[in-house]
Amino acid sequence: MKVILFLLYLIVSPVLFAADLLPSWNDTAPKKAIVAFVERVTKPGSADFVPAPERIATFDNDGTLWAEQPIYFQLAFTLDRVKALVPEHPEWKTMPPFSKLISTPKEEMVAVTEHELMEIIMVAHAGMTTEEFNRTVSDWIATAKHPKTGKLYTQMVYQPMLELLAYLRANGFKTFIVSGGGIEFMRPWTERVYGIPPEQVIGSSGKLKFELRGGKPVLMKLPEINFVDDKEGKPVGIQQHIGRRPIAAFGNSDGDLQMLQWTTAGSGPRLALIVHHTDAEREWAYDRQSQIGKLDKAWDEAIASGWTVVSMKDDWKTIYPSSR
Amino acid sequence: MKVILFLLYLIVSPVLFAADLLPSWNDTAPKKAIVAFVERVTKPGSADFVPAPERIATFDNDGTLWAEQPIYFQLAFTLDRVKALVPEHPEWKTMPPFSKLISTPKEEMVAVTEHELMEIIMVAHAGMTTEEFNRTVSDWIATAKHPKTGKLYTQMVYQPMLELLAYLRANGFKTFIVSGGGIEFMRPWTERVYGIPPEQVIGSSGKLKFELRGGKPVLMKLPEINFVDDKEGKPVGIQQHIGRRPIAAFGNSDGDLQMLQWTTAGSGPRLALIVHHTDAEREWAYDRQSQIGKLDKAWDEAIASGWTVVSMKDDWKTIYPSSR
Repeated sequence: MKVILFLLYLIVSPVLFAADLLPSWNDTAPKKAIVAFVERVTKPGSADFVPAPERIATFDNDGTLWAEQPIYFQLAFTLDRVKALVPEHPEWKTMPPFSKLISTPKEEMVAVTEHELMEIIMVAHAGMTTEEFNRTVSDWIATAKHPKTGKLYTQMVYQPMLELLAYLRANGFKTFIVSGGGIEFMRPWTERVYGIPPEQVIGSSGKLKFELRGGKPVLMKLPEINFVDDKEGKPVGIQQHIGRRPIAAFGNSDGDLQMLQWTTAGSGPRLALIVHHTDAEREWAYDRQSQIGKLDKAWDEAIASGWTVVSMKDDWKTIYPSSR
Repeated sequence: MKVILFLLYLIVSPVLFAADLLPSWNDTAPKKAIVAFVERVTKPGSADFVPAPERIATFDNDGTLWAEQPIYFQLAFTLDRVKALVPEHPEWKTMPPFSKLISTPKEEMVAVTEHELMEIIMVAHAGMTTEEFNRTVSDWIATAKHPKTGKLYTQMVYQPMLELLAYLRANGFKTFIVSGGGIEFMRPWTERVYGIPPEQVIGSSGKLKFELRGGKPVLMKLPEINFVDDKEGKPVGIQQHIGRRPIAAFGNSDGDLQMLQWTTAGSGPRLALIVHHTDAEREWAYDRQSQIGKLDKAWDEAIASGWTVVSMKDDWKTIYPSSR
């Protein structure tokens, strides 16, 4: 009887298909760490077993699920939007931070700080309804191309991470995005691209106001920051939206440090993983000195705490999906 | 072949079990409206079919899923907490709004406004970590009894609504709470009591701060309001947390009006339902004149717009679960 049960277990256990579910990962340490962790928490009856509802996994977006060079993709969107709106807003040409954005050559765009970007996004889209903004994002993401690769931005997601998301979900995990990027910039496409529905996307946001416009209710975007989901903000965003601590978290930069600390400080098995951009040929190579996706303190802590560090060059067979 | 497919459909369609899944509902108009709506949106191939990921249903909590008389249950919790903390905070005896809370006889407690309650909650629990607060709520909810019924507060949930939650989930709906109550007051017990996990609970909240305390990361509760999830706030909370419009919403008071407006303003079939407290014998009877759970404008709009109104007295066979 026990033999039959064991055979049955072999047949149904999704963990055993790991090799098939992560085909773009080399058989190096990171893949082994991921599979070992998933096996531990999903094995019924083991001391490390975690019930499915508590299998919360959080993913940073920029640099973790998709590329972020030479400028954050949301900055490219914002730049296109601001240029399209300048005829209606001639005052922007001399009004910082808009003037800075308009006058800065693209290759120096990294000099625009995240806070300035947030401010620009807020102001540029104030007075739009959430539905209008959704359409604007959807139109842009369907057509805009990356200056270097010529790909659609949604084609610059990482194939190994798509497989990881699917592998975790096949093992009962609920996958969330926890990004410094704008929540309303991500939600129109994350379900289609990552299989992550809008209610599992956490990000930075502006304030909203409910109004009746000619009897029809709308949500207006206000030119005011509501929440910045970066660094210390990430555990706060996780608590506000999810209300329980993840058991696995995935990032690539110092902006993810606090999320990884918060995740690993819980009891029981934990997985903290950092994507290290080491592949100048197939993608980009950057870390401690980079203005975008700086990986410095989080790298030190990863080494000190034994977190898993993925070298894109050594651990990933492919970077982008082959055909999307 | 068509006959076989039809028979197969009869076998697998969960809608046909509706009569069994809603046993505490009388066969009156509200139950018929609920079942008709669910049939419309789940029938594959029909023009009104809604894909499962978009079957979002939002529920108010106080007065909709559980009772709210003679005072909001969270106010009873807060009162108990303030009294327990007074020895450490003698200044509260003369400091409004604490002094008002301490000196007000329980039967006049409705005179404490929602805003004062929020302020009290914020201040009383500032300096606690989210985990400490979670334990405080869990301990209280496990032991505190309602002054009139002698029941645990979690035994004063509405049996017909528990059945409705389960019925919707059996038909592919994702069920959310959207309450003016505190998000951290509800999350410790909503999964056990309603089958609604913390990440599907939206409520009012205080600001949080991430800190390292002796190297260990914690989230501290700050004495500052972050978000008030009531009235105009409800559609905002829905957008921030869910990011798409519900197709069904359930409330009981004017605090739910905007959520019902927002829900019904979308295209395609929509269900808006109001629980009307008409049963002075088995529960309480109150509406237009009540200081708690006032149902006035939302009732007018329900009549004008043809929303479903449940009379607890006439439409529900039972109020509370018989044994929990």
